[in-house]
Amino acid sequence: MKAGELVMLKTSHRGKVREFIVTVREDEFHTDFGKVDLALLLEKDFGDHITAHKGQEFIIQRPRMPDFFNHAKRTGAPMMPKDIGLIIAYTGLNKNDSVLDAGTGSGILAMYLGSIAKRVLSYEVRENFADVARKNVMNAGLDNVEIRCGDIVQEISSLGESFDVVTLDTQDSKDVVPHVSGILNPGGFMVTYSPFFEQTKEIRDAMAEANFYDVRTIECTEREISFSERGTRPSTTRVGHTGFITIARA
Amino acid sequence: MKAGELVMLKTSHRGKVREFIVTVREDEFHTDFGKVDLALLLEKDFGDHITAHKGQEFIIQRPRMPDFFNHAKRTGAPMMPKDIGLIIAYTGLNKNDSVLDAGTGSGILAMYLGSIAKRVLSYEVRENFADVARKNVMNAGLDNVEIRCGDIVQEISSLGESFDVVTLDTQDSKDVVPHVSGILNPGGFMVTYSPFFEQTKEIRDAMAEANFYDVRTIECTEREISFSERGTRPSTTRVGHTGFITIARA
Amino acid sequence: MKAGELVMLKTSHRGKVREFIVTVREDEFHTDFGKVDLALLLEKDFGDHITAHKGQEFIIQRPRMPDFFNHAKRTGAPMMPKDIGLIIAYTGLNKNDSVLDAGTGSGILAMYLGSIAKRVLSYEVRENFADVARKNVMNAGLDNVEIRCGDIVQEISSLGESFDVVTLDTQDSKDVVPHVSGILNPGGFMVTYSPFFEQTKEIRDAMAEANFYDVRTIECTEREISFSERGTRPSTTRVGHTGFITIARA
Amino acid sequence: MKAGELVMLKTSHRGKVREFIVTVREDEFHTDFGKVDLALLLEKDFGDHITAHKGQEFIIQRPRMPDFFNHAKRTGAPMMPKDIGLIIAYTGLNKNDSVLDAGTGSGILAMYLGSIAKRVLSYEVRENFADVARKNVMNAGLDNVEIRCGDIVQEISSLGESFDVVTLDTQDSKDVVPHVSGILNPGGFMVTYSPFFEQTKEIRDAMAEANFYDVRTIECTEREISFSERGTRPSTTRVGHTGFITIARA
Repeated sequence: MKAGELVMLKTSHRGKVREFIVTVREDEFHTDFGKVDLALLLEKDFGDHITAHKGQEFIIQRPRMPDFFNHAKRTGAPMMPKDIGLIIAYTGLNKNDSVLDAGTGSGILAMYLGSIAKRVLSYEVRENFADVARKNVMNAGLDNVEIRCGDIVQEISSLGESFDVVTLDTQDSKDVVPHVSGILNPGGFMVTYSPFFEQTKEIRDAMAEANFYDVRTIECTEREISFSERGTRPSTTRVGHTGFITIARA
Repeated sequence: MKAGELVMLKTSHRGKVREFIVTVREDEFHTDFGKVDLALLLEKDFGDHITAHKGQEFIIQRPRMPDFFNHAKRTGAPMMPKDIGLIIAYTGLNKNDSVLDAGTGSGILAMYLGSIAKRVLSYEVRENFADVARKNVMNAGLDNVEIRCGDIVQEISSLGESFDVVTLDTQDSKDVVPHVSGILNPGGFMVTYSPFFEQTKEIRDAMAEANFYDVRTIECTEREISFSERGTRPSTTRVGHTGFITIARA
Repeated sequence: MKAGELVMLKTSHRGKVREFIVTVREDEFHTDFGKVDLALLLEKDFGDHITAHKGQEFIIQRPRMPDFFNHAKRTGAPMMPKDIGLIIAYTGLNKNDSVLDAGTGSGILAMYLGSIAKRVLSYEVRENFADVARKNVMNAGLDNVEIRCGDIVQEISSLGESFDVVTLDTQDSKDVVPHVSGILNPGGFMVTYSPFFEQTKEIRDAMAEANFYDVRTIECTEREISFSERGTRPSTTRVGHTGFITIARA
Repeated sequence: MKAGELVMLKTSHRGKVREFIVTVREDEFHTDFGKVDLALLLEKDFGDHITAHKGQEFIIQRPRMPDFFNHAKRTGAPMMPKDIGLIIAYTGLNKNDSVLDAGTGSGILAMYLGSIAKRVLSYEVRENFADVARKNVMNAGLDNVEIRCGDIVQEISSLGESFDVVTLDTQDSKDVVPHVSGILNPGGFMVTYSPFFEQTKEIRDAMAEANFYDVRTIECTEREISFSERGTRPSTTRVGHTGFITIARA
């Protein structure tokens, strides 16, 4: 393993699994089970074990996107996996794709897209958000995700490259839409994410104006089912509305 | 383009977009707009145009997974994109992954997984289903998806390879679960799909028995929003239940 | 029983229950089990039996609102029981209430309200709709439901009576709202039903303008659970969107 | 007004409506606006005003079921209005009905039923729960709701009266079901409420065994829609699962 890499340490204690995401570096990491010398990780491989100074043993695992989702630094409410999954499935995102993203936020969507696609270029207008997102992307080891700080509306016309999928999660997505035709490969998909009906309506009007077709707006909801000694039922708590996903095709 | 490849021909007629998926071969394809000489595609590239004998012009596009989903031959009800998306997002499926799948059916899930992951090995017990799925996979040009006809319960112990993600959509998923630990990489995910509560309960019991952790059962529903002159509202028709997705970690 | 009354005849054949709603009158009613002499019902009571000429025996039952709902003549899509129930529960409709209703349609909601409240006055602007609704109301034996053909916006100010609950299901509910304060008893509820967001928004703006308080907009969905030999699951078909219910208090 | 009656006092302060439910009695009630002499209510009528000692004026309103729901003393989670409404609508509960209820709890359902039906007899096995429910019923002024402390399974066969609707919300509803046929009027409805699939399944088996027909199990969900300056969207919080309602007919 190399310095700076994110690694998941997992152990079991009294029948409960505990996990920590740590960075490989010259440092110590303090857990309830005693401290772990993170420098030792430089000589280890995934699947190996490492022992805390009080004797507790951890297995070293390669973190996956759900781990990065749980541990990423957040600058706001990130897009939820249910919505990310819907975007991936309805665009048919695949490893040959080049993606243009806008409204990076914490970079969660960009990271998910980058773990699948060949290249992701993501625009974030707020400098401090872009910095956090870049850190999250780096921690996840995704060198194919480029985060640029700037206004997509200004820059989209002079990008000099084309994309298979475009994902927009910004307040002014409707102003980006008219420029998307120019950089979207034929047969490619544009997707927007917006919490409100009014915004979604404006986006759809812009899509119709720009001759996109197969425009669909979908809301995805998930419900956890609870299994216990007492019986089986849908969970008594559930997630409310996140956002509407609008999919259109060039 | 090469013979056997699937290609999407798209044209616009009276303001409506029409699309056809065709195979590049020495043949003619008959549309309402006249016949198209498919052999001509051998000299074309994606983004080029082709003209039907009555003069209608088509743009040639590279089909994407949603197109393969719409046009694949089906041996039963395939898993829906909303559920496939959830599986991808909650497992963090990515291009470095190796996936073991069982209950291939028409191969829709295997195709989606294969368009993202490095390798997919999928088991289908019914010979004729496996044949259809292989054809669908071939049409989609996915040479990293291998479909084997056989009983996963019998064969899982002697596979000689390990996987990052295991997806099970079979009647006897609960009998496969105990064998998954042996072939799942540390930190990897197992996912099962089942329409019924009773089956799901048995699967979860088997998962607990086999010491999987972070076991969650989720139902994903989607709702289309309808925008028209009259106003905006959720669609008056909607998809009912498909299946419960249970996610567990090694 | 008296002539004109609606009566439910129920029988069992090969393990399946069959039911018919008939009117007590000098006539015959033809069923797959032979004809029934409806005049004989004049001498019967609920709970008694009546025999078709081929010998099949029927039990005579008093029909209830769900029966009237199923058998009423319809001039359009009636409000669904789930929505009617929500209106009843959130207004606390009770037997001492006087209700003003507008947008009678087939009269289904007015009938439900009338089976509970002391008095229901319902306005329908289309003469033929009002006629059908009056017939449905009469068939259900509800002599406390009065259906007037006219424009509620014109007439609401000169009604000369006050109400505990007002229910509006018309295209122009927003124009009725400003007049409701004048006829709603203190502590009473106004409810509107509208399929679209835009209409609902206008209604809420009118409510705020007219100083109504505790304004809430709710969507009610129901889902049938299917139990069979194969297992238990939510139904694979389900009802889509009907309408948004907005509740406000004087 | 008479001593012991519940009354709602409503006032407006800085554009916000505030409401209090108080009992008419020789006492003072302290609000942020100063104290109110409750004995003065004995000389007032609904719609009149009463003034706190610091000069704030309140309108006196007749409380309705949603107010009793909000202010009733609770011995556990009461049934929600959405579920109560569904029961009312699917049974067609009306002012001529006699209802047998079991599992009174805080008495919320019994109170709702009693505000509509002619008579409600409700069984609660826990003495202290029955006491609270009786107090809630008395406060709501419902003299047609009788709460008996006892085991419905033991007593149902010797009630000596029949009912149009039976509502069961007990752990052992499945044991009550076989006895319901004997006391349910022909054409009447039985409804059970249960949070779990397993219980619901047992109840349905008991219903089938006892020859009930038209058995349906429904889950009712509600979703609040949020309207604000920023836009319109479904609420970001929502109520999770409450219970499954099973309706059957005699």
